[in-house]
Amino acid sequence: MGNSRILIIGATGYIGRHVVNASLAQGHPTFLLVRSSTASNPEKAQLLDSFKSSGATILHGSIDDYASLVEAIKKVDVVISTVGAPQIADQVNIIKVIKEVGSIKRFLPSEFGNDVERNHAVEPVKSMFDLKVKIRRAIEAEGVPYTYVSTNCFAGYFLSGLAQPGLIAPPRDKAVIYGDGNNKAVYVREEDIGTFTIKAVDDPRTLNKTLYLRLPANIYSTNELVALWEKKIGKILEKIYLSEEQVLKLIEETPFPGNIFLAIFHTIYVKGDQTNFEIPSDGVEASELYPDVKYVTVNEFLSQFA
Amino acid sequence: MGNSRILIIGATGYIGRHVVNASLAQGHPTFLLVRSSTASNPEKAQLLDSFKSSGATILHGSIDDYASLVEAIKKVDVVISTVGAPQIADQVNIIKVIKEVGSIKRFLPSEFGNDVERNHAVEPVKSMFDLKVKIRRAIEAEGVPYTYVSTNCFAGYFLSGLAQPGLIAPPRDKAVIYGDGNNKAVYVREEDIGTFTIKAVDDPRTLNKTLYLRLPANIYSTNELVALWEKKIGKILEKIYLSEEQVLKLIEETPFPGNIFLAIFHTIYVKGDQTNFEIPSDGVEASELYPDVKYVTVNEFLSQFA
Repeated sequence: MGNSRILIIGATGYIGRHVVNASLAQGHPTFLLVRSSTASNPEKAQLLDSFKSSGATILHGSIDDYASLVEAIKKVDVVISTVGAPQIADQVNIIKVIKEVGSIKRFLPSEFGNDVERNHAVEPVKSMFDLKVKIRRAIEAEGVPYTYVSTNCFAGYFLSGLAQPGLIAPPRDKAVIYGDGNNKAVYVREEDIGTFTIKAVDDPRTLNKTLYLRLPANIYSTNELVALWEKKIGKILEKIYLSEEQVLKLIEETPFPGNIFLAIFHTIYVKGDQTNFEIPSDGVEASELYPDVKYVTVNEFLSQFA
Repeated sequence: MGNSRILIIGATGYIGRHVVNASLAQGHPTFLLVRSSTASNPEKAQLLDSFKSSGATILHGSIDDYASLVEAIKKVDVVISTVGAPQIADQVNIIKVIKEVGSIKRFLPSEFGNDVERNHAVEPVKSMFDLKVKIRRAIEAEGVPYTYVSTNCFAGYFLSGLAQPGLIAPPRDKAVIYGDGNNKAVYVREEDIGTFTIKAVDDPRTLNKTLYLRLPANIYSTNELVALWEKKIGKILEKIYLSEEQVLKLIEETPFPGNIFLAIFHTIYVKGDQTNFEIPSDGVEASELYPDVKYVTVNEFLSQFA
């Protein structure tokens, strides 16, 4: 289908910006639906300017403004949503317009995390996952062609913090380990999430599938991750293990939004929900489909801090 | 109207549990609508057992299960929702059932934070506040009698951390201060939030009003708070001030849910949105209405850590 035209909704978000960069880098005519409040935020305005300089077309509107959505979606072949948690439910508006316009070849709803249908998440994350599941069902009910992108852990956050919340660099004294440290998680650099996502949009092999980012070099248990880091800095860390009971108690005692952090760590590390199932028949693995993508490895990523 | 019967939806949540305790303590027949997933979580099951022992009636169902909602709401005079972020939008179901049942004397939607209509919040908090505003408009459009409870800061989180994210006790070496430290915030212990909330449900003075918790002894700028803590521990802390530009940049660079934390700190501390407006004509102040409530002061609260 040549170089499809892509609309990105949520372009200035944490993941959205990398999807925009990848879309431009891979030569797609790239359109961004931007709210007026976004354009008036100085940090975001700067980002939008850089996208414009790189060739993106800024469209003003939002997923709550039906007319703006129709106009934007009519201009493109592919719609990618990277909206944040408060807008997940509102993606029904996108589905409605895609159905109405009738010419969209692929829709990627805002996922970009764990598989929301294969996990043992507790509240409040369970309900957040359920909102994404509702969107999946709405897409399928309307017969909209889709790809769900399950990225697993953002390296810039989870790997920088060595699988602990709230750190901006790996610790040099002690490591807090959620669960027994043996469950494996997957780490993907944000730029590589953008690259794999855009690779998938025109690919018939990802049509109506979930694209899993299970990059072989980046699958580590927390114990393996800590050992790798210890080797890099030539120092043994003190380890503090939190049992599931302790983590569940912490979740109970922590108000929003801290309880979200803890419940995410529970599903990833205590339950092992990124790797405790085989990739299903309606799923495909990104590094297998795109072996040419030179993604950043966990080993390389951690070296920047050593 | 005597002791009204109260239904609490979100009873095992961080604030919900204190509302339940206050409802029972003030002698209200107390009903809790509980999801099956909640009852199967061991931490939450224990909490539900303690509520039952204190006289609460557990009803099984959820805000997504219409029939269970109708049945529950028919049993009571007052409905209090303390549902978490993923369920805020779904509160339209509660409004619909209240309208249909027709006998509810007061509905308190899940608010329990800053005034969602008077603030300078940035994303992703702006959109989260907007979801609560939509619920307010839906309540008013249906003519459902309401009280909005604006609690400001939960002491157990914001005060324990001395106005910094991620701490469970005030720091003893350095304090990170969001903004110039001169804006005043309001701190309320979670138990007192429960007490004031339940006081309001039968009170004609709070009908169709916002109840603001601006407790005179608990209004502190961050600089005043740090000075009070320094006096208690007899030590001067190093202060690190983050400018608005720095905080906005941090929000941009941090993924969900960390960006929510930072955007909450931005609206409270950098913008001063808990105290930078006069209580409006459709608002009332809790300590003025209920001078008999002996709330825990900031000074008392901080003493436990000194």
